[in-house]
Amino acid sequence: MNKVICDRLAALRAKMAANGIDYYLMPTSDYHNSEYAADFFKVREFFCGFTGSNGTLVVSKDWAGMWTDGRYFIQAEREMEGTGVTLFKMGEEGVPTISEYLEKNMETGEVLGFDGKVVPAAEGLSYEKKLSKKKIKIRYDKDLAMEVWTDRPALPCNPIYVLSDELCGKSFEEKLSDVRKVMDENNASAYLLCKLDDICWLTNLRGNDVECNPVILSYLFVTKKNVVLFVQIEELNDEVRKYLEAKNIEIMPYNRIISWLDEYEYEGITLYDERNVSYQVYRTVADNAKNVGATVKNILDPTEMLKACKNEVELKNIREVYIKDSAVLTKFIYWVKQAAGKEDLNEYTAAMHLDAMRAELPGFIELSFPTISAYKDNAAMMHYEATEEANAKIKPEGFLLVDSGATYMGGTTDVTRTIVLGPLTDEEKKHYTLTTVGMLQLANAKFLEGCCGKNVDILARIPLWNIGIDYKCGTGHGIGYMLNVHEGPHSIRWRSRSVEDEAPLKEGMIVSDEPGVYIEGKHGIRIENIIEVVKEFKNSDGQFLGFRHLTYVPLDLDAIDTKYLQPKDIEAINEYHKAVYEKIEPLIEESEIKAWLKEATRPIQ
Amino acid sequence: MNKVICDRLAALRAKMAANGIDYYLMPTSDYHNSEYAADFFKVREFFCGFTGSNGTLVVSKDWAGMWTDGRYFIQAEREMEGTGVTLFKMGEEGVPTISEYLEKNMETGEVLGFDGKVVPAAEGLSYEKKLSKKKIKIRYDKDLAMEVWTDRPALPCNPIYVLSDELCGKSFEEKLSDVRKVMDENNASAYLLCKLDDICWLTNLRGNDVECNPVILSYLFVTKKNVVLFVQIEELNDEVRKYLEAKNIEIMPYNRIISWLDEYEYEGITLYDERNVSYQVYRTVADNAKNVGATVKNILDPTEMLKACKNEVELKNIREVYIKDSAVLTKFIYWVKQAAGKEDLNEYTAAMHLDAMRAELPGFIELSFPTISAYKDNAAMMHYEATEEANAKIKPEGFLLVDSGATYMGGTTDVTRTIVLGPLTDEEKKHYTLTTVGMLQLANAKFLEGCCGKNVDILARIPLWNIGIDYKCGTGHGIGYMLNVHEGPHSIRWRSRSVEDEAPLKEGMIVSDEPGVYIEGKHGIRIENIIEVVKEFKNSDGQFLGFRHLTYVPLDLDAIDTKYLQPKDIEAINEYHKAVYEKIEPLIEESEIKAWLKEATRPIQ
Repeated sequence: MNKVICDRLAALRAKMAANGIDYYLMPTSDYHNSEYAADFFKVREFFCGFTGSNGTLVVSKDWAGMWTDGRYFIQAEREMEGTGVTLFKMGEEGVPTISEYLEKNMETGEVLGFDGKVVPAAEGLSYEKKLSKKKIKIRYDKDLAMEVWTDRPALPCNPIYVLSDELCGKSFEEKLSDVRKVMDENNASAYLLCKLDDICWLTNLRGNDVECNPVILSYLFVTKKNVVLFVQIEELNDEVRKYLEAKNIEIMPYNRIISWLDEYEYEGITLYDERNVSYQVYRTVADNAKNVGATVKNILDPTEMLKACKNEVELKNIREVYIKDSAVLTKFIYWVKQAAGKEDLNEYTAAMHLDAMRAELPGFIELSFPTISAYKDNAAMMHYEATEEANAKIKPEGFLLVDSGATYMGGTTDVTRTIVLGPLTDEEKKHYTLTTVGMLQLANAKFLEGCCGKNVDILARIPLWNIGIDYKCGTGHGIGYMLNVHEGPHSIRWRSRSVEDEAPLKEGMIVSDEPGVYIEGKHGIRIENIIEVVKEFKNSDGQFLGFRHLTYVPLDLDAIDTKYLQPKDIEAINEYHKAVYEKIEPLIEESEIKAWLKEATRPIQ
Repeated sequence: MNKVICDRLAALRAKMAANGIDYYLMPTSDYHNSEYAADFFKVREFFCGFTGSNGTLVVSKDWAGMWTDGRYFIQAEREMEGTGVTLFKMGEEGVPTISEYLEKNMETGEVLGFDGKVVPAAEGLSYEKKLSKKKIKIRYDKDLAMEVWTDRPALPCNPIYVLSDELCGKSFEEKLSDVRKVMDENNASAYLLCKLDDICWLTNLRGNDVECNPVILSYLFVTKKNVVLFVQIEELNDEVRKYLEAKNIEIMPYNRIISWLDEYEYEGITLYDERNVSYQVYRTVADNAKNVGATVKNILDPTEMLKACKNEVELKNIREVYIKDSAVLTKFIYWVKQAAGKEDLNEYTAAMHLDAMRAELPGFIELSFPTISAYKDNAAMMHYEATEEANAKIKPEGFLLVDSGATYMGGTTDVTRTIVLGPLTDEEKKHYTLTTVGMLQLANAKFLEGCCGKNVDILARIPLWNIGIDYKCGTGHGIGYMLNVHEGPHSIRWRSRSVEDEAPLKEGMIVSDEPGVYIEGKHGIRIENIIEVVKEFKNSDGQFLGFRHLTYVPLDLDAIDTKYLQPKDIEAINEYHKAVYEKIEPLIEESEIKAWLKEATRPIQ
């Protein structure tokens, strides 16, 4: 028996009883549906022991169940052993969804409780709808964990800083005017923005409240005349205060959001995006608006598309930052290829080495995400993470996959190279070569304006599909400007997850191009360049778009088998390598690395 | 002044006044929204002179306007000269839609009239919605043309015939059972099917009531126990009557559909597809159902997907028919290449020659569509049609584009070849070569089950997009089995027109693969093979699909410039030509054609 967990669950159940809650639900999210959640938000982990990145725990007075997806079945079973919590394997046949389970097992008139600030509106509304038939009440104003978890970590609270208009290319006022245009088009009086990176983009502020994302825990409420920013007051210094005053942005304490929205005098239409607003925020706005005859309207956050199409200044800075970052990775590749077999290296120490190299670059702020360093068959696991304690030793053979990046003053990078450390199998070479073909084929395509990622995805995938291999993820994602390494609305994937995934590719967007091969127990290959959408030719057939590389890091010719290449593929590799050499060589001082780079980017036939 | 038209409009206006109708609207459609409409339905042409395939005429007591699209602006202006009818250029800036025009110009309480049997439900409903604000009434039960157009052609009325279960691969009962499964899934008591090719597919009947489509003017009403077929009684012979009796299909006169639907005792849910039902039929069903507390439900006709996935018998027959049809076209290509410059040939006589060759094949029923024969720059016009009176003379130079096909016992074909008749420009060769690359690249692709046309379209298009050329149409359409040459739900196009265009490609579907280049004033190139969706490999990454050619007609090596080809493209051409020779040579008797075919399908380097 896992006594720690059982005791915690008992304490939770006592609080549930005291509050008249029959079932209590704990998802994996912060207040803003962010990709990464701080320790403060790890309530589900606290009450069941499961540490994965996706899971929802539901507890009743005599039962507890935890829902997670296929990536985590084994891990969840292991971590929850002895807790008495039942694992529900999402997506498996016969396994009910949470709604289905609750609908079947809750009694008429019972109460479902959750912290409405961490449950997305869409999810809360679906429980509401599903359970209303059984007259089940929802209580969403109680964060019971607060009362049980006595040594709960504090909410992240880190200094905010201001980016200059010069660095952002557009002032807050200009961006606000674009947002208000959308409000006018929707006849809206107000707009509630809850998405952290969008708030940072709009205000030209940055912070450090989410791991690897330079964002601020905040909400922004925009009316035709006013802008109110909800932040933790402790995060503000004088410079930021002055900036906010100059921009006429009113400051309100972060934890006052609900009471403020509760007291606000709504009129006309208030806009929100149901993907990004929590259930409690939604309920507060919608119920209060309704009470005074005002309305709410769900839209796709207009900031998302505005933020995705980088402006000229951002693009100029991004291009420069990517070259600097590419040079660092190039040097790392040289180093790790030399060091493998000589030094006592493992996946983790190799990652640390790269992270340290990046941290030395001027303008370095933080990593874009924890560096993925995966050796041999570990790279076949898409969510593999080596740690100081658990990692593989690096030997002079096979592939090392390194997926990494950082946020610098001037941009956020993301790049993957699969590095040859020694002898490869023919199959490894074949897979590496075809992954390269796909990556370059997509990057070199010209396509008509109006195309979305779904139209072009197959260009990266077809060399692998033709031999019966698929990588079970998208080909590409958008990337922020000194912001989150994953951002929308665009993506490159062959199956859309939802309507907003159908966003067209537009000039100034940047997107990753990262096909791969993942063979369980054997090897994992991913080659990721970031590419920029640019205008090509325009004629009576329309405006053609294309891509331009931002990433300039050598592909590994040691893994290229020319028998899988067409002349145009060879030309594409040589052309890319020529550009890599021209752009990176000037940033390298050491003559032996220069010589190696020359060789690593040599034309092949 | 065009006295004929003016007199007709005056007579129409008199009838409008007599019936209390202020505005009368005449679209281009038959009772079933078919692709081709019989002369009986050419009411719009009768009242304004415009003969194009898309246009809606609206007449008031002192004004008339005709809406058409960009293909027809010049033609419509010419044909309507002196009629006093105003041309509305659809899609041009500032040009109102019909709804907008009516909303602005009709007075409160006025009456809009149209024949509700030729206006699709969705269109009628949109007028209803838009005009209800001004309390405008809609009168849809009057076909005023009937009273004015005294020598109106009769409704097509041609003999029906029965296809054997052996020829269809599935009996009516089996198909009906599949349809009733969908009714059960929808908890439906009844299903009204209005789409002609779907009715023919379901009943295994064929007819000849629409040009080039072997269909029957009909409606089908299916309940849990009964099936009622509405047809023109004159179309039935004893064999068909016996068949219908044996299958328990009740016969009702075609023109009784409205009164029958008016008297039917609705209960529960009646299914219909709003794309295929006319406004009058919809209103009759919906209003009567509502009156007795029953409901109607809009679904995508389930017959569409069932019909699209050909069964094993259909596929076997289709494969054979395509080989025979390919042999005929191959012989024609030989003939026209020889004859050009020697015989007195024009586009029209060349088409007649091909049509006659097809008509001699055993099992020939009719052409799939009027043969397109377009020489040189005429081929750049996508809707060009040579006639006996207006056509271009064929000389021993440039390209002749021939798009043709036929329905035979065992299948409906469609194929396009662009034939070299003499010297070409370098540009023509480049465009022909890249069109070939695209056609074969799509045909040879392997892709995961779940892909729709939108995912794969770019494979055919990218060789042309890469040089800044687009063909402004889809890459492919489905094709019926002894039915319409265009059928859904699948298609291959990069932009979907609507949700139903997103149908996944499934095993047994057949689809065209027809990229092209259309350069105004210069040349038109289209290469069209029909391909069948087949299963390839299945593994842990999923079920991979691919295509198999149905069409085996030589590509024209005289137009191939190998400098635009990669080795894999050359391999693809040679592989295809090897198959063409193997399959077609045995069907050719003449030794000189055999010799030519050998040469025409020779491997290139």
